[in-house]
Amino acid sequence: MRVLLTGGAGYIGSHTALVLLERGHEVIVIDDFSNSSREAVRRVEELSGATVRLVEADLADREAARSALAHVEFDAAIHLAGLKAVGESVEQPTRYYRVNLDSTIVLLDLMRERGVTNFIFSSSATVYGDPQYAPIDEAHQVGVGVTNPYGWSKFMNEQIVRDAQRAWPELGAVLLRYFNPVGAHPSGRIGEDPSGIPNNLMPFIAQVAVGKRERLSVFGDAYPTPDGTGVRDYIHVMDLAEGHVAALEHNAPGVSAYNLGSGVGSTVLEVVRAFESASGRPIPYVIEAPRSGDVAETTADPSRANAELEWRTTRTLADACRDSWNWQSLNPAGYGA
Amino acid sequence: MRVLLTGGAGYIGSHTALVLLERGHEVIVIDDFSNSSREAVRRVEELSGATVRLVEADLADREAARSALAHVEFDAAIHLAGLKAVGESVEQPTRYYRVNLDSTIVLLDLMRERGVTNFIFSSSATVYGDPQYAPIDEAHQVGVGVTNPYGWSKFMNEQIVRDAQRAWPELGAVLLRYFNPVGAHPSGRIGEDPSGIPNNLMPFIAQVAVGKRERLSVFGDAYPTPDGTGVRDYIHVMDLAEGHVAALEHNAPGVSAYNLGSGVGSTVLEVVRAFESASGRPIPYVIEAPRSGDVAETTADPSRANAELEWRTTRTLADACRDSWNWQSLNPAGYGA
Repeated sequence: MRVLLTGGAGYIGSHTALVLLERGHEVIVIDDFSNSSREAVRRVEELSGATVRLVEADLADREAARSALAHVEFDAAIHLAGLKAVGESVEQPTRYYRVNLDSTIVLLDLMRERGVTNFIFSSSATVYGDPQYAPIDEAHQVGVGVTNPYGWSKFMNEQIVRDAQRAWPELGAVLLRYFNPVGAHPSGRIGEDPSGIPNNLMPFIAQVAVGKRERLSVFGDAYPTPDGTGVRDYIHVMDLAEGHVAALEHNAPGVSAYNLGSGVGSTVLEVVRAFESASGRPIPYVIEAPRSGDVAETTADPSRANAELEWRTTRTLADACRDSWNWQSLNPAGYGA
Repeated sequence: MRVLLTGGAGYIGSHTALVLLERGHEVIVIDDFSNSSREAVRRVEELSGATVRLVEADLADREAARSALAHVEFDAAIHLAGLKAVGESVEQPTRYYRVNLDSTIVLLDLMRERGVTNFIFSSSATVYGDPQYAPIDEAHQVGVGVTNPYGWSKFMNEQIVRDAQRAWPELGAVLLRYFNPVGAHPSGRIGEDPSGIPNNLMPFIAQVAVGKRERLSVFGDAYPTPDGTGVRDYIHVMDLAEGHVAALEHNAPGVSAYNLGSGVGSTVLEVVRAFESASGRPIPYVIEAPRSGDVAETTADPSRANAELEWRTTRTLADACRDSWNWQSLNPAGYGA
């Protein structure tokens, strides 16, 4: 398939591009490089030995996107483009809503104009809001207790996709609800390259390990969890990338939602110890007050994806720490220079 | 105050413009006339003896709106612009989401750039979804059981406004949740002028009364209501317009939601009989199967608006039927020719 990969130069995008190419698909990346790097795409080409077609445009800008894609044919779209920093979304809500909603609306319209019916959307476990139980399955309520515009934009995009499909029954839409993506390609050539202070745990730990940050702040140690720190479901980005390709290849008319998670919960301190072990470096940390909006435990029940997509995670937290450390130590400045 | 009234040439907009002018406010209408008429604004000027500044632009088009409003100063905005036909929203979801969400996002950004903090938003009782009880107060859950993109766009806009206010604490935002607006200005000079087949009950009945349509379809007569037909809360459009002005004049930093309804429920057949009585014409009707998504009863508890906005409805269903018939019989082709 010729796959349009929006946001394909980003963290998840670059790993998904690589898996697509390795599976023999053609990849067209559309990205505005507002939070990603051409170098990531270059390295994907180098790792795969294949060529990526690169289209630079802001997908949320209807006329720009239409014009940039005028002569680009594709059979399916994996839609990852969007803004993703939770804290920034609270400070810049209208920007987050505009970019994240308009990019989806524009892409759905472009697909309908061209009769492209295979659509994979990058959603998030944040749509579940405050978890009512764990592990969370896809029948869990959504849109209740969501705490920030980033999470709301994912919920709203899911609804927009559902309504688009109701109006256009040929559309096959898959909503992939990510848990916590971590790790990097084992080559250490591509990985997560956050700008500024990392929002997520593992890149922050990796920067502590490499000496770029002094210590980790652990928010809360009195949750009802094995060691009192929060439990999350970490999924290796290569497993996540394979989940996208499985969704693409199994897609059929209708809307389906799938959790992409490992099904295994890990505490913050377990991640710290796993990273120390993988890197051989100490990770100093301090316990701080819990953050409002944080919950004790979020873990995925991935059994629907296991069964229907014939997909499952095969990599462990230790693998993710090893690969993240490999990426970080080989590229201390990310794609930077 | 100089009030920017988006969608000010429409049904609710024209009546709100008139009440604003009568209260001594200045009115700037921004409208793209996609579903409204310049003639409505002209008649508002004629009724009030005041002048309305008219800006023709699509508010959802950021650059067009910015340019059209570049030299227009305003102290507050009442945001009514948007698409509103439930059935059409199911058929054209991405258009509804784009227009209704982008117009709100663009307006909030323009207001923030200019430091205009008084914002009144046209929401809807549809955000309550499937009513859990009646009458509905503002503490009723929202966003659960909403059945169409129009309703979802109202829910999403409420969330966008809430998040915008959290990032910009000076903003005073009022979410007005309309029940079922009906009636017209008693002069018969302005009223509801739906294009095509009316989506709402009273304009449909009015067109039957005037001979434009043969008969009314009543969907369902076995609901647990006094006569088996659905119960709704009809609010006279002049009461609704006064509610907007009350919200504008009471607005303070923060976000407040208010039901604008009468608190009185009326069945479909009660509306039919009231219109027959007001018009002296028979309204033939047929009972049809209930529509999926319709609920037995939706009525407002308007006590929060009564108390905090010092506003209450003063017009009855009979008044609304009289005024609607007056408008319809004086303007059988609407603003048409």
